[in-house]
Amino acid sequence: MTLTLDGRLAPLNWSPENCSIRRTLDLLGPASSILILREALYGTRRFDQFAERLGMSETSIAARLKQLTQAGVLERQQYREPGSRPRDEYVLTQRGEDLAPTLLALMQWGDCYLQEGPAPLHLVDAAGEPVRVAFQRADGTTVAPEELHLRSAQDL
Amino acid sequence: MTLTLDGRLAPLNWSPENCSIRRTLDLLGPASSILILREALYGTRRFDQFAERLGMSETSIAARLKQLTQAGVLERQQYREPGSRPRDEYVLTQRGEDLAPTLLALMQWGDCYLQEGPAPLHLVDAAGEPVRVAFQRADGTTVAPEELHLRSAQDL
Repeated sequence: MTLTLDGRLAPLNWSPENCSIRRTLDLLGPASSILILREALYGTRRFDQFAERLGMSETSIAARLKQLTQAGVLERQQYREPGSRPRDEYVLTQRGEDLAPTLLALMQWGDCYLQEGPAPLHLVDAAGEPVRVAFQRADGTTVAPEELHLRSAQDL
Repeated sequence: MTLTLDGRLAPLNWSPENCSIRRTLDLLGPASSILILREALYGTRRFDQFAERLGMSETSIAARLKQLTQAGVLERQQYREPGSRPRDEYVLTQRGEDLAPTLLALMQWGDCYLQEGPAPLHLVDAAGEPVRVAFQRADGTTVAPEELHLRSAQDL
């Protein structure tokens, strides 16, 4: 299966200069940024926690948090523990939360192909029912990958 | 919204050493590998086409195609044009095809946040109905991101 490219896209008649995949990868930067977003999605907020949980140097963490804040996917919020000076913690923005399907699609693939045993983490709903990343129409019906087409905006 | 971490995972009580996201990122390597997979998903197969469409050097393309073939997401198939010697082309394996939700979730995010105008490409079904990457239960019903939980395999 490859995607079926419709209209002026076929056969590969499209120059991918405005590609949203490339723009997203350029914005998110190195793989370590994705792991920071993973941690933010799990609820990690504080500089020391990111460094400890990811085993990354403070320099790397600081650079990545700065980049992701500038990209608008994390935002700083001040907190203050009793007796301490105010500090920043890093929280997902709506833009950042909307990366959840990307992160969980990566997890789903790794669960399937890169774990020797069962997946270490299971994505479920509030009742414990398994949840998967899938393709859907607006009415909620599922689309098989073989049925996917790409169409140029100019052909709509 | 962050994911709700259940049972022994909360509060961040999980050491992410077997993380499927990290393993997948390590396997797929640099961002240019994702762009090669994008091209493969669109139907690009030949070395020269990858190089031309991605504007990458032949050295980079060769390194990435080798890495992705070793990772089992692309496989070589021989073809022969009349009067030429046999050559290899690169085709997605099932493992590679199963990265479609990841790639299209990246596209969906970039379409939403990184395009000034409308998205250049539209993901549709065979009848032209818009298709999105979404979270689903086994019965096909949709799950809102706010309803997502993660559960340790040991808590099942």
